[in-house]
Amino acid sequence: MKKVINCPERVVEETIEGFIAANKKSYKKVENVNGVIRKDLKDKVAVVTGGGSGHEPLFIGLLGEGLADGVTLGNVFAAPPPFNIQEVAKAAHTGKGVLFIYGNYAGDVLNFDMAVELLEMEDIECRTVLVTDDVASAPIERKADRRGIAGDIFVLKIAGAAAEKGSSLEEVARLAQKANDHTFSIGVGLSPGTIPGAVEPPYTLGDDEIEIGMGIHGEPGVERTKMASADELTERLMNTILIESGISAGDEIAVLVNGLGSTTLMELFIINRKVAQILEENGIKTHDIDVNSYCTTQEMGGFSITLLKLDDELKDLYDAPAVSPYYKKFNEHYVHTKNE
Amino acid sequence: MKKVINCPERVVEETIEGFIAANKKSYKKVENVNGVIRKDLKDKVAVVTGGGSGHEPLFIGLLGEGLADGVTLGNVFAAPPPFNIQEVAKAAHTGKGVLFIYGNYAGDVLNFDMAVELLEMEDIECRTVLVTDDVASAPIERKADRRGIAGDIFVLKIAGAAAEKGSSLEEVARLAQKANDHTFSIGVGLSPGTIPGAVEPPYTLGDDEIEIGMGIHGEPGVERTKMASADELTERLMNTILIESGISAGDEIAVLVNGLGSTTLMELFIINRKVAQILEENGIKTHDIDVNSYCTTQEMGGFSITLLKLDDELKDLYDAPAVSPYYKKFNEHYVHTKNE
Repeated sequence: MKKVINCPERVVEETIEGFIAANKKSYKKVENVNGVIRKDLKDKVAVVTGGGSGHEPLFIGLLGEGLADGVTLGNVFAAPPPFNIQEVAKAAHTGKGVLFIYGNYAGDVLNFDMAVELLEMEDIECRTVLVTDDVASAPIERKADRRGIAGDIFVLKIAGAAAEKGSSLEEVARLAQKANDHTFSIGVGLSPGTIPGAVEPPYTLGDDEIEIGMGIHGEPGVERTKMASADELTERLMNTILIESGISAGDEIAVLVNGLGSTTLMELFIINRKVAQILEENGIKTHDIDVNSYCTTQEMGGFSITLLKLDDELKDLYDAPAVSPYYKKFNEHYVHTKNE
Repeated sequence: MKKVINCPERVVEETIEGFIAANKKSYKKVENVNGVIRKDLKDKVAVVTGGGSGHEPLFIGLLGEGLADGVTLGNVFAAPPPFNIQEVAKAAHTGKGVLFIYGNYAGDVLNFDMAVELLEMEDIECRTVLVTDDVASAPIERKADRRGIAGDIFVLKIAGAAAEKGSSLEEVARLAQKANDHTFSIGVGLSPGTIPGAVEPPYTLGDDEIEIGMGIHGEPGVERTKMASADELTERLMNTILIESGISAGDEIAVLVNGLGSTTLMELFIINRKVAQILEENGIKTHDIDVNSYCTTQEMGGFSITLLKLDDELKDLYDAPAVSPYYKKFNEHYVHTKNE
């Protein structure tokens, strides 16, 4: 696998340098660690996200108004060290506390929890909301054990909007937790992505083989099966997610059709065509549909579908402006109020 | 190659259906042909772009305020038929004429020119600006023979902004032509993308082989050589583009680092790090840098670098708002004036 890199040991540092070079006005690096914060930090709860690198644009590309205030980045597919997390949180903190949002992986939980202990010794109040949207990774009775995949985007969107409104740390944490409780995803792996510097992919899939429910680091899914048509695959995933989520006629949702890396936008549109048909057939109202590759695994082939069940509270936050390099949302209301 | 499709013959139709399903409020399909237009068409010059499908988000994802009013889509890597072009232009036309912007490929030129003849018989005034940014495809003396690659984005950005301001067809065409004359790109191919339905890729590249200057359909480049580091590749491309463009100390530019499909955003950031260093060393001022995959070739590996040399006129248009699903730009000025 050809990767356009200089040195496998420096990909994260150089990724940050290249990101900052393109966005100098808005973001700056946190000294001594692999982390980035907004330059226009406000007097509000700091939302800090992060995890292993290699999933770009998540996390670094979602820094900005109505999203994350700081990101802490580990090596590719590896949790950031506690000191890294601590320094980013301190740099992003403006006195109103820190909310950590990240996907539920053992290494991340260990390191973020250690950082929280250290931060609380410095009298910085912290809360944590783990993203657990992957329905294929544990049964509903153990939702708290599920992995976090593309649902990160929705939970971050809601938390960032709540923080931007000036809500308290308790309130932002409550809303982020509610967003997570309402977010359900499932993916399918078609071909592996490779870690920079690695010669071989971390697993193999046959020419006609796919894995339903495979995680974003190649974690085992629920079934290894034959490649099928876009409609068949989409039906399979939608059936599972509708059963798991209980989302049904009359409900209103936001949808994310997320590419894992090398699956093209053309394919994602073809998938979305069937997603929208199924939702309509089931009487489910789609408030918004986003088709993009926000949470990737290097050049992995495959996609995931995420549904966020909305109520009035979540819908207001979902519709709030978000301004980052790789996730942008704004509406007339925003345009109107921004200069008042 | 696994593609998430239903039927190779229907990928363009289903892509459009999936795109519309995600963007119902803003866009609608043109009846009987593979084309899409804005719902909020204004009384201004209609900017129509298009070409072969398979390069998503280009062209369909760049429909919107300050960009394209209509897109006409051929099959994968094939020019749209004249009737298709004609119908999209008629649907997008509001009485102020139509400006066609598309990459310089023989099939496209043939079909668009035929459509222009038919439209002029219906008294719809048309102008055409061909995008010819690929410096590897012909020498500078024959700039008009060059192919269009990611420079499409910049030419469309400038033309869309000029049209949105209410400029005349002559004036919008002049500015689009000027943007093209100021736009220079070069790419490198690392691995081929495949056409949906095809079993084999259209060409092969060895495990350690790359092609400098390769076109976005695999057209021959200037040199087939060994894979190199990100910095070496970037230096090689930047040297060529700076010589070809004459861009030098004191000039001000906009930059696009564009991924061709499966090259990750992490790699594009690492490339951009070097691009920014080289520009700074050369005393060239970067007004804006955009790092994204706007002009792709299915899951092709590789990237291109595009430079747009700005002057006051082009800079104003570059900074104007643009609101499409996959290219968004807005600033305080826009936010302020939108509701006046």
